[in-house]
Amino acid sequence: MTGLTVALDAMGGDFGPQVIVPAAVQALLQYPELKIKLYGDHGAIAAQLTLLNQHSHSRISIIHSDLVIADETRPSHALRRSQGTSMRMALDAVSDGEADACVSAGNTGALMALSRYTLKQLPGVDRPALVSAIPTHGLNKTWLLDLGANVSCDADTLFQFAVMGSVLAEQSLPSKPRVALLNIGEEEIKGNDLVKRCAEMLSNSPDIHYIGYIEGDQLYAGKADVIVCDGFVGNVSLKTSEGVANLFISSFKQAISTNPMKRLLAKWLFSDLFVSLKKLNPDQYNGASLLGLRGIVVKSHGRADTAAFANAIGEAVHEVKRQIPTKISDRLEEVLLERHY
Amino acid sequence: MTGLTVALDAMGGDFGPQVIVPAAVQALLQYPELKIKLYGDHGAIAAQLTLLNQHSHSRISIIHSDLVIADETRPSHALRRSQGTSMRMALDAVSDGEADACVSAGNTGALMALSRYTLKQLPGVDRPALVSAIPTHGLNKTWLLDLGANVSCDADTLFQFAVMGSVLAEQSLPSKPRVALLNIGEEEIKGNDLVKRCAEMLSNSPDIHYIGYIEGDQLYAGKADVIVCDGFVGNVSLKTSEGVANLFISSFKQAISTNPMKRLLAKWLFSDLFVSLKKLNPDQYNGASLLGLRGIVVKSHGRADTAAFANAIGEAVHEVKRQIPTKISDRLEEVLLERHY
Repeated sequence: MTGLTVALDAMGGDFGPQVIVPAAVQALLQYPELKIKLYGDHGAIAAQLTLLNQHSHSRISIIHSDLVIADETRPSHALRRSQGTSMRMALDAVSDGEADACVSAGNTGALMALSRYTLKQLPGVDRPALVSAIPTHGLNKTWLLDLGANVSCDADTLFQFAVMGSVLAEQSLPSKPRVALLNIGEEEIKGNDLVKRCAEMLSNSPDIHYIGYIEGDQLYAGKADVIVCDGFVGNVSLKTSEGVANLFISSFKQAISTNPMKRLLAKWLFSDLFVSLKKLNPDQYNGASLLGLRGIVVKSHGRADTAAFANAIGEAVHEVKRQIPTKISDRLEEVLLERHY
Repeated sequence: MTGLTVALDAMGGDFGPQVIVPAAVQALLQYPELKIKLYGDHGAIAAQLTLLNQHSHSRISIIHSDLVIADETRPSHALRRSQGTSMRMALDAVSDGEADACVSAGNTGALMALSRYTLKQLPGVDRPALVSAIPTHGLNKTWLLDLGANVSCDADTLFQFAVMGSVLAEQSLPSKPRVALLNIGEEEIKGNDLVKRCAEMLSNSPDIHYIGYIEGDQLYAGKADVIVCDGFVGNVSLKTSEGVANLFISSFKQAISTNPMKRLLAKWLFSDLFVSLKKLNPDQYNGASLLGLRGIVVKSHGRADTAAFANAIGEAVHEVKRQIPTKISDRLEEVLLERHY
């Protein structure tokens, strides 16, 4: 181990070094023990550091890379051509033990494929899952997974998601996380076979505090700490929330646009509201973690701003300190033992 | 045909005659050509009519029924025990030609099962679909289906949904409806096999104006007139929207709760906003139509208020006037001919 070092793919996302370098500097202020390795175009990164008068920051190192994985590259193609790209080098740093975690705002499919290839899955994990914490009524959070890493899953995979989500959530909770399955009805009779089969597995697993089905309208109600679904459903659900948020904001602005006086009043009334609205796109706000690998990888949103990318770095630090991968593999081992004997 | 007669399951939903009878009276005012048959407890219905001074309304008839299908009844069980229930009698009225459409706020699963049993599917339809119009930025609507009638679909079923949704949407549009598939990425490479197979079928069908994939965050953006997905995804997506709307309303209220002055101002600023929010639960607002049957069935939300149930009756009237089932079967015939020859 190298203390607490996070490797950043400095070229990923819509803005690259322009956002990622300031975010790195912000994270270093927040975490005195943190070291950051920036992978990407040396000139562009150095230029940003100079702008911030941080060109010789003692806890930042730059590792040059000429190549970037484009957003539209297919995962399979990215995998074949990844050698020497900023994303691949940042991930290799984790697998080589030169860094404890990797954060990238680059091509999601490529990041997942490269992460699986370089870091490998933990024993007992069929597929890694993308997880993020969504806001709920009050101050609580709910961890939702999978957010799109797996478009189709079997019951075993969903079960593993429940275990992994539970391990991550319990780091931030006083008691055992309440785990629910996202379904189209709360009654036992509803839902598809996949969900029903996984429900049975969860009910029979003493290690998981399974509380049953939850419907989409309860996603933000804080009734569960971990909500599990396949990647297609999770992605649609998360993106739909983003769409509703946008619709709300536009109707909100429309309602006051006609009248400057109204605009002023609205600002005074709802200064905090828009902040909470932003959190409705949690992967944009916090980043999403790739769980189930032999290393820590956090995906920041492609359009993430400095604050959002800094949050993603913070999430990586959180997971390093709590050694999430080790905890997940230990828990999976226990659970699998239970199920077999 | 009996002119324009709608049969109402007066006992369905959380409020029964208390909401449904006033809604019927409201609809009769709106549609002078409309006749309504109320199926349910004669005493309870008559009592409501008396309250409204409409006990001898010339366009209302009451058909007594002792039995109601409970909300928690399994569809299979409801099917076996449906004889003489208000829902079954209202549906039989349609299959017997005594009514042109049926509206019920009762048990969704039972309504779908009974509708299929009494009315039968149209030729070329594997499964009926639940469809509703969701609001978008501006004044447009987008028809989303399936909303939960089918938890798992194959590509052919999704294709039929696209055709049926297209027929319904074009009744309210000046040009050919733009049809999209709900997916987790706009790129061709993304999504699951089901969606990819259906995309290929749609691209090869000249009768459908297929515009490609759409993501959840674009659901309310008005980029498509018809959005197609399986019932599990559609239901989660719609319910999630409801959940986000509730989260908004609560943060909104929280922001002003502390201060009566703020409450007053907010009321003045955003009187219209809450109305538009309500529309985010379209099935509660408009009802959802069951497409693909040899008759017209509209499902009103169980918690629908008088206005919402009246809207559901209005949707039924709209579909009767435009003879949606006939149009759907004609279109499906054309499309299937094209695909086979």
